[in-house]
Amino acid sequence: MRMYDIIEKKRNGDSLTNEEIKFFVGGFTEGSIPDYQAAALMMAIYFNGMNERETVCLTDTMAHSGDTVDLSRFGTFSVDKHSTGGVGDKTSLIVAPVVASLGGKVTKMSGRGLGHTGGTVDKLESIPGYKTTLTNDEFLDQVEKVGIAVIGQSGNLTPADKKMYALRDVTATVESIPLITSSIMSKKIAAGSHSIVLDVKVGSGAFMKDLRHAKLLAEEMVKIGISCGRNMAAVITDMDTPLGNNIGNSLEVEEAVRVLRGEVKNDLYEVSVTLASLMVTLCLGTTLRGAEEKVRAVIEDGRAYEKMKEWISAQGGDVRCIEDLSLLPRSEYSCEVRSTFDGYITGFDTEKVGIVSVILGAGRESKEDSIDHGAGIILRKKTGDRVKPGDVLATLYTNRKEKIPEAEMLFNSCIKSSWAEPEKKPLIYKVIK
Amino acid sequence: MRMYDIIEKKRNGDSLTNEEIKFFVGGFTEGSIPDYQAAALMMAIYFNGMNERETVCLTDTMAHSGDTVDLSRFGTFSVDKHSTGGVGDKTSLIVAPVVASLGGKVTKMSGRGLGHTGGTVDKLESIPGYKTTLTNDEFLDQVEKVGIAVIGQSGNLTPADKKMYALRDVTATVESIPLITSSIMSKKIAAGSHSIVLDVKVGSGAFMKDLRHAKLLAEEMVKIGISCGRNMAAVITDMDTPLGNNIGNSLEVEEAVRVLRGEVKNDLYEVSVTLASLMVTLCLGTTLRGAEEKVRAVIEDGRAYEKMKEWISAQGGDVRCIEDLSLLPRSEYSCEVRSTFDGYITGFDTEKVGIVSVILGAGRESKEDSIDHGAGIILRKKTGDRVKPGDVLATLYTNRKEKIPEAEMLFNSCIKSSWAEPEKKPLIYKVIK
Repeated sequence: MRMYDIIEKKRNGDSLTNEEIKFFVGGFTEGSIPDYQAAALMMAIYFNGMNERETVCLTDTMAHSGDTVDLSRFGTFSVDKHSTGGVGDKTSLIVAPVVASLGGKVTKMSGRGLGHTGGTVDKLESIPGYKTTLTNDEFLDQVEKVGIAVIGQSGNLTPADKKMYALRDVTATVESIPLITSSIMSKKIAAGSHSIVLDVKVGSGAFMKDLRHAKLLAEEMVKIGISCGRNMAAVITDMDTPLGNNIGNSLEVEEAVRVLRGEVKNDLYEVSVTLASLMVTLCLGTTLRGAEEKVRAVIEDGRAYEKMKEWISAQGGDVRCIEDLSLLPRSEYSCEVRSTFDGYITGFDTEKVGIVSVILGAGRESKEDSIDHGAGIILRKKTGDRVKPGDVLATLYTNRKEKIPEAEMLFNSCIKSSWAEPEKKPLIYKVIK
Repeated sequence: MRMYDIIEKKRNGDSLTNEEIKFFVGGFTEGSIPDYQAAALMMAIYFNGMNERETVCLTDTMAHSGDTVDLSRFGTFSVDKHSTGGVGDKTSLIVAPVVASLGGKVTKMSGRGLGHTGGTVDKLESIPGYKTTLTNDEFLDQVEKVGIAVIGQSGNLTPADKKMYALRDVTATVESIPLITSSIMSKKIAAGSHSIVLDVKVGSGAFMKDLRHAKLLAEEMVKIGISCGRNMAAVITDMDTPLGNNIGNSLEVEEAVRVLRGEVKNDLYEVSVTLASLMVTLCLGTTLRGAEEKVRAVIEDGRAYEKMKEWISAQGGDVRCIEDLSLLPRSEYSCEVRSTFDGYITGFDTEKVGIVSVILGAGRESKEDSIDHGAGIILRKKTGDRVKPGDVLATLYTNRKEKIPEAEMLFNSCIKSSWAEPEKKPLIYKVIK
């Protein structure tokens, strides 16, 4: 078998055999197939796609290119949730305790934030003491006892995907449905959960800018996950506006805790309820309507909030910070951004809002950057709100005082406004189950 | 400027600016742009093509990526000929003296053979003493005095093309009209001739297997050459059958000499007349009809043959071998391949015939292989001939006695036959001027 023939075949629009896909993934991962041949194949796949059988094989081969997590002891109860990434998206912090308090076994290996999107691991690390690395036994024991463990990606999980993603990232071959699908799903499958709920974000702050492509991706991932023997559901949610009001690590923990306490019933609450309900449906077999009732109930009666504290505590975090949110880190300087216009907010350039949070210190521009856990943005007005000149639009928090003018100016340029009240757009576009 | 953006732009079907093309060629040649990004761009160009302006810029930038030959002292008289490669194609050996005997200045930097196609330099080296390297001054002086110099590719000509072709060759991105065009034309432009005649081969022994693509390539190369300020013509000729009867280095010199002596009037003679006439038209401004009359005349009256001897002698070759062809090298063993069928030859798998000649020792499988100048094939029957069982189809010559059975069997499998007399196909499909 020769890599040249594989490239030529895909270039000509033919489908690859499973043997050819395995030959490529194996050779590329071990280094016998050079990057330039892999890059040519990625571009040919960008143009000619892959059919379902090819995508399943690519996903499965990448999933098994390194270590895999064995969650078989939890049977069908293990459940994971993945978001394609957005701004202000702290749903994992909410759905994990909600689902665990109902009997699901929530296991997550989360990434760190990069660019305009945050990472769950960074958010959890804003809680003093929280350990994002556990041994395999500690991880499994905690899931057994508490029902949740959320750690950083560790070990040699999906090395094929790591290498391939790094190459796609510099060769303009990221935007391909089969390649995105196999990248995301291979990691989820290696991470071991029996049920997986996907949150595909669409809009100005998301990787997918239009609904058509978001639907295609969501449907493809569900199909591939099922073909790989997993229980799948997906939801397409809006990312034309940051989710919730808080952006930045400790600020997002704070908002998540308020939702779990039942204090906040905003867009973040609604998306979290939808995601948690789907997770419960998948791992406990409840109907969607029944699941949703239970989810709302465990938030109302405080069980989800108690479960969060149990989880944070089990993983070494200081629970006093959850009970008294003022103990969470908060940057030294703050600045209120005030409106200069009179009208309605019609939307955000959400990706740019994420970039403002990075400028304030809440995120990373490159992998090596450190993070200011207390930096970020609290939105005081959101899409659809009526605003008068002088109204506070947002509060910015940072330790980089000198960055405030730049951040303020950029934040102002993120807001789209109009005299006319905007039409209300859906928060949840589609549930795929 | 970032290579990523250039790849993405071409991937999205947009055209690149001249600055972007120069940035890529420069960076790739010096090594600051890695192979994997270049490979991704090549594949994006394979799918989305390049417009005329882009192809001209790519050609011109590659042409000037290294040394260039200055032939300005010959004004509009300098003329070059390029073939896309075939089996038995020794037209360069014929047209060079024909055109020079009429006053053209024929300068050629030729390649060595690789795979199933032979190289002019290898053929000339079968003449004892022929020097394929000359200093720049020797080269120009000889063109001045004799009207011809044919040498091997020397110096640092088009390093960008060398590097890019090597990459395309292993990433299945060779078959792209703008990339083929810029590769061929950049070399021709760097080689300096004012007029260039292209012989685009089509058929089973050619790179281009169908007429439509051959026409597209020929027209594109003529257009690009004109845009680069050259005088251009192209001809599309048949390569479904080896050209002429002899294949292999000294065997091809022999056949070329016989054509120049007026002894042979076969397909090789006709293609050579057409090519030489176009060259004369371009470099001397004669009408095509007038040029053709002159070309046939200098073959008939022996002037072209005398010019060949003058050229070979000037470049150190032993002219006695031209005058007495039995002095040319000839391999030790020969074998007559006889027909087992009764019917008409309808065609050849011409590429495979080339491979048979390589097995016999006449060509190279890889660049490092040495060559047996006296090995090869003389076809005794060609397409359209009526054959009876036992008739000699060809004579094979080799020093590798042990290879004869394999070569004989493979040669037999190259011949297509039928009871019905085949329709006569054109030898010259199209002249583009």
